Amino acid sequence: MRLLLVFSILSAGFCWAQAGDDSKPASSNVMGAQYPRISSDLRATFRLRAPDARTVQVQVGADQTHYDLVKGADGTWTGITPPLVPGFHYYFFFVDGAQVSDPASHAFYGYSRDSSGIEAPEKGVDYYEPKDVPHGDVRAHWYYSKLTEAWRRCFVYTPPGYDTNIRLRYPVLYLQHGSGEDETGWSNQGRVSFILDNLIAAKKAKPMIVVMDRGYATRAGEPAPAPPAAPGAQPAGRGAQPGRGAGFGGTSAFEDVVINELIPMVDSTFRTLPDREHRAMAGLSMGGMQTFQIALNHLDKFAYIGGFSGAGGGMGRGAAFDVKTAYNGVLNDAAAFNKKVKLVWVGAGGAELNGIGASVVSFRDALQKAGIKVVYYESPGTAHEWLTWRRDLNEFAPRLF
Amino acid sequence: MRLLLVFSILSAGFCWAQAGDDSKPASSNVMGAQYPRISSDLRATFRLRAPDARTVQVQVGADQTHYDLVKGADGTWTGITPPLVPGFHYYFFFVDGAQVSDPASHAFYGYSRDSSGIEAPEKGVDYYEPKDVPHGDVRAHWYYSKLTEAWRRCFVYTPPGYDTNIRLRYPVLYLQHGSGEDETGWSNQGRVSFILDNLIAAKKAKPMIVVMDRGYATRAGEPAPAPPAAPGAQPAGRGAQPGRGAGFGGTSAFEDVVINELIPMVDSTFRTLPDREHRAMAGLSMGGMQTFQIALNHLDKFAYIGGFSGAGGGMGRGAAFDVKTAYNGVLNDAAAFNKKVKLVWVGAGGAELNGIGASVVSFRDALQKAGIKVVYYESPGTAHEWLTWRRDLNEFAPRLF
Repeated sequence: MRLLLVFSILSAGFCWAQAGDDSKPASSNVMGAQYPRISSDLRATFRLRAPDARTVQVQVGADQTHYDLVKGADGTWTGITPPLVPGFHYYFFFVDGAQVSDPASHAFYGYSRDSSGIEAPEKGVDYYEPKDVPHGDVRAHWYYSKLTEAWRRCFVYTPPGYDTNIRLRYPVLYLQHGSGEDETGWSNQGRVSFILDNLIAAKKAKPMIVVMDRGYATRAGEPAPAPPAAPGAQPAGRGAQPGRGAGFGGTSAFEDVVINELIPMVDSTFRTLPDREHRAMAGLSMGGMQTFQIALNHLDKFAYIGGFSGAGGGMGRGAAFDVKTAYNGVLNDAAAFNKKVKLVWVGAGGAELNGIGASVVSFRDALQKAGIKVVYYESPGTAHEWLTWRRDLNEFAPRLF
Repeated sequence: MRLLLVFSILSAGFCWAQAGDDSKPASSNVMGAQYPRISSDLRATFRLRAPDARTVQVQVGADQTHYDLVKGADGTWTGITPPLVPGFHYYFFFVDGAQVSDPASHAFYGYSRDSSGIEAPEKGVDYYEPKDVPHGDVRAHWYYSKLTEAWRRCFVYTPPGYDTNIRLRYPVLYLQHGSGEDETGWSNQGRVSFILDNLIAAKKAKPMIVVMDRGYATRAGEPAPAPPAAPGAQPAGRGAQPGRGAGFGGTSAFEDVVINELIPMVDSTFRTLPDREHRAMAGLSMGGMQTFQIALNHLDKFAYIGGFSGAGGGMGRGAAFDVKTAYNGVLNDAAAFNKKVKLVWVGAGGAELNGIGASVVSFRDALQKAGIKVVYYESPGTAHEWLTWRRDLNEFAPRLF
């Protein structure tokens, strides 16, 4: 990586002059951590103390580049990246070849591990920041699944006023994470509560309950997918992206868990409007595939369907997509489908269209060719990453219920 | 560390024969991770892939030892520890001198970072495991603090039935984390919801709300304590323990935040019994010091007081303790104090009495010498660690309200 080595030596050389001027600790850092820092042009300066290491590199977000850090006299290594795309990016350090997390970063579950993450601020954008508006709660809720014979945890956003308007019942959005992520993703990386709080306060979205379940489920006794040989083995590490494959988690029983266990539990535990007209499902990447599978197979349960950077029709898994046969043929009668289904949302990042986004676009095309009404959203300049999905949610939620 | 090197070479040599037989992946691992593993005698086998590293070590819990891992032909390093004390332990890898987290572990905020943690199972003990009983929720709740001019997050446990028994009001326990930890500690490391669910189901504890706030607060404009020079600089790293110092977080405004902002917010947001007879405060380590300071300075607000491995009287900070003058002299009239305060709980780990526990015991002695009724609890065989505090909570909660 000669070029980058040169680059990072240079940049490390003037990172104080450049980044030092207006750079600030990333908001995703743990309390007190001064690195990583973000400058106003969104270049990130990373630093790690590794006195005896021979090489330290950092990989940030969808960019597969390993940036070399340069060792200082005090045993800390420093490196600076080109300007980042705004929003949230996973990152990893490689210390003498070991892929590890940054002790200065809060952990965000992605790539099938508690990864480091860096938030690059988006100028003039605050729809996913806490504001002086009423705030809903996000509850960790445990329930027992007979299908999997295991306790499961989901997170449930209850909107402002839920505890006081005790006569009111609410519509429900089921919102899923991507592969290698888990039920914490939408709260931590996705900022779901702030996005909904702000939309509801602005009267842009109806007060709703949002249920974020764990997208992995295998029937009791059914073997889970083979685990990695060792923690350092990289199931979704360098080169992989959330949304490719199912990480380590089996998903074969997830549809049945949602239909037969999760929805009945939610409708009996929370003050929901328990009919299809007041139930939506959406998900990102793998969660989008799961959403199309579950919602299209159960139109009696859902009237609103959203895929964020996730294709249906099996295309995400490389299979052919025949609208005549897919999903038990529900797409055959477009008129009837368009009458019954209030919204089909297909979203993708503008910078992922040569990657995972391609299957999303061809899924959209196939639906439209079949006469299915589709709302397509393309997030400007973002790849297969959380800013794409925050924007999806911010545009999708106002169209619900 | 010659002896340990020899030890770990040996153990690595026969860890398959020994640990391989009955060892299981730790329950604190991320999904699918096969290491670290725990054998029935609670020896832990750690493994990290670090093909180019020259040294890999692991440090576990209160034990300051750095255990050397041994490199295998496939670039993974393996090492085994002596039997661990049951319960939760923080751990770190050192890769060529860099202190990093294990990608195979879930992250637990401690030592002022998202650290790795390993759960060593406790034979025949399940009071902190999920059981087939009604479960309360733990809510992430945001509120704005005018004193600090910042949004703050607390976690609030609402007991089973809170959403359905809409006429019922509940007593409140304010429960604090230790230094270098945060508001997530009691939910993640402490298992607070399972402990309360199980106590309430067994009718051993009254249904109560538990509020877990962030124990750091500095007035707007007041400088926070100096941050570390760089991540990896070890404020509470090797050698330090939760409970020593305040990590990176200032605490000077925490008492005022609790009294003037948190309690009024909780009483206006949740269905509480808002009088002192139905309000308790407890905390671990630094949170214990904060509890004695806040509760003893505001006996009009609290009737139950608990310190888990945390001394009051300023002793935790090395200052002298004069019962006559401390806490505005509330300890002078023991008879009046014992009549007014329903419970003073002082807990410590049996294995920390030569360390932080010593100040706890002498605080207890000073109180008793002054005629103050104290319930003292000593956790058998545990140090300044979470199993001590889970046991404290499990014994303390039944005495409340």
